[in-house]
Amino acid sequence: MPPPPVSPEIDAFLREPNPAVIATLRSDGSPHSVATWYDWEDGLVLLNMDESRARLGHMRRDPRVSLTVLDKDDWYRHVTLRGHVIRIEDDPDLADIDRLAIRYRGRPHRTRDRKRVTAWMQPETWFSW
Amino acid sequence: MPPPPVSPEIDAFLREPNPAVIATLRSDGSPHSVATWYDWEDGLVLLNMDESRARLGHMRRDPRVSLTVLDKDDWYRHVTLRGHVIRIEDDPDLADIDRLAIRYRGRPHRTRDRKRVTAWMQPETWFSW
Repeated sequence: MPPPPVSPEIDAFLREPNPAVIATLRSDGSPHSVATWYDWEDGLVLLNMDESRARLGHMRRDPRVSLTVLDKDDWYRHVTLRGHVIRIEDDPDLADIDRLAIRYRGRPHRTRDRKRVTAWMQPETWFSW
Repeated sequence: MPPPPVSPEIDAFLREPNPAVIATLRSDGSPHSVATWYDWEDGLVLLNMDESRARLGHMRRDPRVSLTVLDKDDWYRHVTLRGHVIRIEDDPDLADIDRLAIRYRGRPHRTRDRKRVTAWMQPETWFSW
């Protein structure tokens, strides 16, 4: 796997539990966006969704995505990653959503009776502000 | 002009100077996203950009956009508007960027020597969380 295309400063920024918005493509090619949790690991972005989410269908159809991450303390600092979803997999024991819930909320995910799906995004380009 | 397709609660939310991310389409059809200031007036979204911004070219080429607005005090509350940019116009006296700078920062925009452009977005659908 290639090294992450980001500087150490951006890498540190992405490790923080910051607010983020993921943009995907609808079937008609128009953009869709929604707030999301994420995690950052070895140059890849972890995303996790309830299996009913529209954006999961979007990613399966067209893996091109853009993620804008805002600094939780000062949203004028922000980083955008553009790239592709390279892997989509079930999260049967809710390990990935628990990981995100603990990262953002300090406790495991409360809803245990819904199927969750994980998507891994590989960034190809990025810009920061 | 049709009435805004949002509830009074969403209308009040959008009037606040909240963080937002705008998603546009690049020339290859892939999504682009970036943090943005916005204002909300009579059911339309005001956006304003330096004339060099990539997203301005995107909007001129394909007016389909998606705007996700996060609650500035609790980003787990968020609203997304999807729709079209219906009007793009120069902002020669910087009135629109000053309006946004005052809304978000309490003072006129500092940079006075760059051309600014205003885009008005008409939402067609929305969802909130």
